[in-house]
Amino acid sequence: MPTVTNNQILFVQRPAGHIEIEKTFKASRTTIDTEKDVPNGGILVQNLLLSLDPAMRGWMNDARSYIAPIKIGDVMRGGGIGRVVASKNPKFKVGDLVEGMFCWQEYFLSPDGKGISVLRLPHPKLRIEDAMGSLGMTALTAYFGILDVGRPKDGDVIVVSGAAGATGMMAGQIAKCLAKNVTVIGIAGSDDKCKILVDELGFDKAINYKSPDWRQKLKEYTPKFIDLYFDNTGGPILEECLRRIATYGRVVLCGAISQYNSAPGSSTPPVGPASYINLITQRGRMEGFIVFDYQKRYPEAYAKLSQWVVEGKIEGKETVVKGLPNAPEALLALFDGKNIGKMMVQVADDSQMPKAKL
Amino acid sequence: MPTVTNNQILFVQRPAGHIEIEKTFKASRTTIDTEKDVPNGGILVQNLLLSLDPAMRGWMNDARSYIAPIKIGDVMRGGGIGRVVASKNPKFKVGDLVEGMFCWQEYFLSPDGKGISVLRLPHPKLRIEDAMGSLGMTALTAYFGILDVGRPKDGDVIVVSGAAGATGMMAGQIAKCLAKNVTVIGIAGSDDKCKILVDELGFDKAINYKSPDWRQKLKEYTPKFIDLYFDNTGGPILEECLRRIATYGRVVLCGAISQYNSAPGSSTPPVGPASYINLITQRGRMEGFIVFDYQKRYPEAYAKLSQWVVEGKIEGKETVVKGLPNAPEALLALFDGKNIGKMMVQVADDSQMPKAKL
Repeated sequence: MPTVTNNQILFVQRPAGHIEIEKTFKASRTTIDTEKDVPNGGILVQNLLLSLDPAMRGWMNDARSYIAPIKIGDVMRGGGIGRVVASKNPKFKVGDLVEGMFCWQEYFLSPDGKGISVLRLPHPKLRIEDAMGSLGMTALTAYFGILDVGRPKDGDVIVVSGAAGATGMMAGQIAKCLAKNVTVIGIAGSDDKCKILVDELGFDKAINYKSPDWRQKLKEYTPKFIDLYFDNTGGPILEECLRRIATYGRVVLCGAISQYNSAPGSSTPPVGPASYINLITQRGRMEGFIVFDYQKRYPEAYAKLSQWVVEGKIEGKETVVKGLPNAPEALLALFDGKNIGKMMVQVADDSQMPKAKL
Repeated sequence: MPTVTNNQILFVQRPAGHIEIEKTFKASRTTIDTEKDVPNGGILVQNLLLSLDPAMRGWMNDARSYIAPIKIGDVMRGGGIGRVVASKNPKFKVGDLVEGMFCWQEYFLSPDGKGISVLRLPHPKLRIEDAMGSLGMTALTAYFGILDVGRPKDGDVIVVSGAAGATGMMAGQIAKCLAKNVTVIGIAGSDDKCKILVDELGFDKAINYKSPDWRQKLKEYTPKFIDLYFDNTGGPILEECLRRIATYGRVVLCGAISQYNSAPGSSTPPVGPASYINLITQRGRMEGFIVFDYQKRYPEAYAKLSQWVVEGKIEGKETVVKGLPNAPEALLALFDGKNIGKMMVQVADDSQMPKAKL
């Protein structure tokens, strides 16, 4: 200091279907003068962890969505957690742990501190990884999706797809906190993941959708059909769960990872669930939501989640990839289901960083 | 009397895809002794009108649904309006106009009068055809679908498919009664139907989905997207309307006439809407319902609908086919879109019948 090198990964071309790392991304570098470049009211954040999420694939498309598409040439968009390393804003002091859309780079320079919040970990048991995992945006997503959209009732049969992913594993565990005597069935992509769901995370059953008899298993495990289905995948799993939807059943549309790399007219066009017709005969409801709409209620969710984590009622898991240059591959690995729990990239080592008192 | 011949049409084989009249149905005949065959507590009804509805195709499938499948060999199921011609039940007198599941036959013998209600037409302007059309089950369906599931708000852009059908034409008109300044766009299968929707039934716009530019028209007519879509068709129209769903938009799943003759593994397998994904990004809700769930609130709906019909705010249209033997062809004609408004079969002429005071 006062000058730091800021390695970045730029978004340089919209993928048509699957992301091709060399075409989609490009490494870049800037330098930042930690005194002169920080304006009055601004702060400089050094990234510790970047969040990788399937939804980021959607941000790459030039389409109507809940958020503007990433612009070509911009630093790749992504949420992060970091520490304030320079501050000319009275709301932030050097060493504060902060979160925001810090993007794929080592440093984030904010002209005004807007959209950045200071993270408080309300219990010594809670780690920085928890702030991104079991208390992070994916956990908030699971919380509001289950509570507000799924509205679980005591005794419900609940199915979660993408259950070993960051949102799915929280959704299943949160459902158990919010309603009594529910049966929670997770659907995931390997036997190992299924084992973790049942042995470590309290799921009642788990189904590996890559096993040939998964449909049979789902039928067997849901003799009274499915009251609440939390969908992270779309595709054949959504199709099958709608086939088994209970009367007055609810489908929470959280994500559709099987569809994000599809493109109309391509060899893998997007597909819809033909069994949606059961929503008529069974009076079902299928509803989407976006966690950002619940911003005012984040404190409520954060308090509940922290409490449950501390009490051991829910547990986050993380897959941490080290080094910013590995972010593109880590993003692709998400779509191959290589992660268990929250996928994150460690950009810097917190032990080397100045800390403000929490 | 006392002996009457009762011509019937039996349901003798489940169709795999399209109904084939000779295979699906069979004419039959019984005789009924109007004194001896009517038990104490029972009534004998002579059918005047039979209701034909796309949903009847669903009743033919041996599948989980809101109602048990029709049994092979039974008289074809269907709602009807008739007059009581013999009564040993104090709740009914000869000449009463009644409605119930009278099935495809000339006479319906009820052992206990259960499931049958006496129809009161609360204004001299109202005809028996209104009791089946603008005040009938399809009108109730439109009423509860729009009001309870669609929840129209002032200023909404509302699209109705199958808009020239019995339910669709009521849905569009009812929406205008329930919310202010709404724009109602009907989608129907011919230019003639579109003309009727706009010129006679108060729709703001109508689109013939058989014209090659219908998607373009839909886009043009919905610059602010679609707040409420009332779906009677499924298929490409559902796909397109979901593509144009507004933020917080609602899709009322009422029916799916394009799908009822589809069968998995056939040359026309059922299809689902790939654009359901917009329900996530736009936080949309897609919800099915069955009018039978609203039975307790039928009086509310009946009162409102009668009032609106009398005031000229809504209007039913009917396509009346004469003669019970023509019921199978009339049912098929529904799927070819040959009807405008409520499709019904006139089984007997009311002018020849004894009447109780209404």
